[in-house]
Amino acid sequence: MFNFAFKYYTMNIPLSSYPRIVIIGGGFGGVSLAKKLSKKEVQVVLIDKNNYHTFQPLLYQVSTGGLEPDSIAYPLRKVLIGYDNFYFRLAEVENIDTAGKKLNTNIGDITYDYLVVATGSETNFFGNEEIEKNAMSMKSIPQSLNLRSLILENFEQALLTDDYHERDALMNFVIVGGGPTGVELAGALAEIKKGILPKDYPDLDTRRAQINIVQGGDCLLPGFSAQASKKAEDFLEKLGVQVWKGVRVTGYNGKTVTTKTDLKFDSAAVVWAAGVKGAIIPGLEGEGVAAGGNRINVNEFNQVIGHPEIFAIGDIACMATVDNPRGHPMVAQPAIQQGKLLGENLIKLVEHKAMKPFIYNDKGSMATIGRNKAVCDINKFRFQGVFAWFVWMFVHLFFLIGFRNRMVVFINWVYNYIRFDREARLIIRPFKRDYSQFKD
Amino acid sequence: MFNFAFKYYTMNIPLSSYPRIVIIGGGFGGVSLAKKLSKKEVQVVLIDKNNYHTFQPLLYQVSTGGLEPDSIAYPLRKVLIGYDNFYFRLAEVENIDTAGKKLNTNIGDITYDYLVVATGSETNFFGNEEIEKNAMSMKSIPQSLNLRSLILENFEQALLTDDYHERDALMNFVIVGGGPTGVELAGALAEIKKGILPKDYPDLDTRRAQINIVQGGDCLLPGFSAQASKKAEDFLEKLGVQVWKGVRVTGYNGKTVTTKTDLKFDSAAVVWAAGVKGAIIPGLEGEGVAAGGNRINVNEFNQVIGHPEIFAIGDIACMATVDNPRGHPMVAQPAIQQGKLLGENLIKLVEHKAMKPFIYNDKGSMATIGRNKAVCDINKFRFQGVFAWFVWMFVHLFFLIGFRNRMVVFINWVYNYIRFDREARLIIRPFKRDYSQFKD
Repeated sequence: MFNFAFKYYTMNIPLSSYPRIVIIGGGFGGVSLAKKLSKKEVQVVLIDKNNYHTFQPLLYQVSTGGLEPDSIAYPLRKVLIGYDNFYFRLAEVENIDTAGKKLNTNIGDITYDYLVVATGSETNFFGNEEIEKNAMSMKSIPQSLNLRSLILENFEQALLTDDYHERDALMNFVIVGGGPTGVELAGALAEIKKGILPKDYPDLDTRRAQINIVQGGDCLLPGFSAQASKKAEDFLEKLGVQVWKGVRVTGYNGKTVTTKTDLKFDSAAVVWAAGVKGAIIPGLEGEGVAAGGNRINVNEFNQVIGHPEIFAIGDIACMATVDNPRGHPMVAQPAIQQGKLLGENLIKLVEHKAMKPFIYNDKGSMATIGRNKAVCDINKFRFQGVFAWFVWMFVHLFFLIGFRNRMVVFINWVYNYIRFDREARLIIRPFKRDYSQFKD
Repeated sequence: MFNFAFKYYTMNIPLSSYPRIVIIGGGFGGVSLAKKLSKKEVQVVLIDKNNYHTFQPLLYQVSTGGLEPDSIAYPLRKVLIGYDNFYFRLAEVENIDTAGKKLNTNIGDITYDYLVVATGSETNFFGNEEIEKNAMSMKSIPQSLNLRSLILENFEQALLTDDYHERDALMNFVIVGGGPTGVELAGALAEIKKGILPKDYPDLDTRRAQINIVQGGDCLLPGFSAQASKKAEDFLEKLGVQVWKGVRVTGYNGKTVTTKTDLKFDSAAVVWAAGVKGAIIPGLEGEGVAAGGNRINVNEFNQVIGHPEIFAIGDIACMATVDNPRGHPMVAQPAIQQGKLLGENLIKLVEHKAMKPFIYNDKGSMATIGRNKAVCDINKFRFQGVFAWFVWMFVHLFFLIGFRNRMVVFINWVYNYIRFDREARLIIRPFKRDYSQFKD
């Protein structure tokens, strides 16, 4: 399509008399931090591989046609509009050269005085390459759009076959992982099965569509209160979702999901939501990286052990505390709070003042299961049902970036609620899909 | 990613005692026709290669970040909800077997009693393969999204080079074709240059960005009144667009646009809006197809010459009349009107009654150039400016399908107007882009 020959010479960021802070990643942590550094005597360079911030908690609504991708994404350049001495670069960081205090990226090198790693997390397949190849994950907007297209394509395909095993497999969803992502996706799919499929596919027996959620541990929503966990399971079962607990998935060859027991699922739509790991960048491996989770060990100032000029915040950072000996939960709140505090601390550091240690203010957890159904654990309060659902919506609208996004999401929710509908059920693949892979 | 092995057996459409009408294409024509056939004694099969209807007149707003793609697309299955005896199939038609009265598609064959070809049009490169390979076109949602990503990527790239020729080329837009699509796109890009680029790229001299519109003929908006054409040119020039008339583009190698004269443009973003042709399907070539335009000759009932059971409507149909000796203009109105009338005529045909000939009710033409700037030719009325701009918006909202789409588009327009903004400036490519093509 396009073959303009680019030559990358430099990142073209002018030297400044102020110290340069480079932030890798424009997620919750990176954006909260950048906002705090506005109008300070520092130069800030924000690097991201996308030109937008993604509101990850609502990705499952993109996958299920409830929201447009554009309304949960926000241009990163717009976040920085009006900030002096700020630079954004669309780039992938390839390596951190801690000795030379610089980054190697696909668009050239850049030096830093202070570096903040806020790369977030990626799906953890625990080394199972077969599952990685065949299952879908849902950590980014392109992945969510691919899942949306796959779900819709599967129903179109189910119409075409006379083999009822194949038809059932095409309508059989297996969600691996019973955390908030898995639970919310299962609930949304159950609502679609009830409200949309019978109308959209009158010539298909969509009652045979099944939604399975498979959890390795013995309860859904680990980390939530026992009450929330139990209620979420009740809600899902009322919606017709099959909840499998204590079942560990061992493989998926693109046709059949195998487990540690003799339980098997034939499925054409397997979503892997069973774990995340820090999105590590080469260069900090050694002592910095916590075993197993791919997270970077930091002290109470989010400083990487052994590198006082390097910080890590959010999902990628592992700050062991008494309450959270294996680091804070990999969700939005620790990232936002660490970003804000680090903003203040970096200014203190530049001014040779003492930094303030991070103390996590756990605002609780919530998950929505479906129409009028959510569970909330907020401080000592545990509540479920309609009120929890309203709280969930309010909180998500509040944390969404951008006035227009909030308005569009709100209108979609009102519309979907009143009409029992989800209109963004579109198969859109900007690059043409290769259908040959579907042939025998 | 996904390797479920599909075996296509059949389209799985049951035989009915009613005659079967197969419609190829869910654009303005196909949808208008389908709506008219609801609750009639016919079986209707609608085939489209997308599962959604595209509101093509607003594609340029998707390309320029003003609207989300999902708000100008509408699920075709939802159009048909509640219609009895209707079937939708996501398929590409490969051939029309007129002798066997059946279609060959990528998901199997299907017979028809009556066939309606409503495949619309595609970009016409007039056989120039070099331009086809290197220029962007804007006839579908994936194409519009690719153009949006390309525009944004070019500005990101422009930041990185020290070669000012290259930087200028990356910020140099060449729009080939001065019809409504070219004019509307040029205007939107000019608004972006004025309102968004200086804020988004403070470290880039975006005053050097140029928008060129190149028209082979001697006026913009051919087919409009001389007054509208002149005013559109004034509007564009006021917005800083360079208007080149009487210039025929001969090539584009991915770097340089060549013309019949010695005028050249170095550009990394060339949009080809210089022509469309009917999206022909093999099988009707012979006498049915009009020379040059790839359109199918039809009589006053939209019946294909020599095939009384085959009809063509909309862009693909060429109905020569006194007012339009080379067929009606390839825009939405003739398609909608022909679709509605054919719906009535097909029922008449089934009931052995006389069909009604098509008479085009020309409702006029309009194009928007930018904020408060549009031109309208409606019957004898020619008006331009703010009022025309309101009329343009009202008409487009009216013809958009779906209440939610209208609401979301309306809110975006109000927001964009008040804030001088376009927030959907996101580089989203669901399939990972191969960056190696950018390297030398």
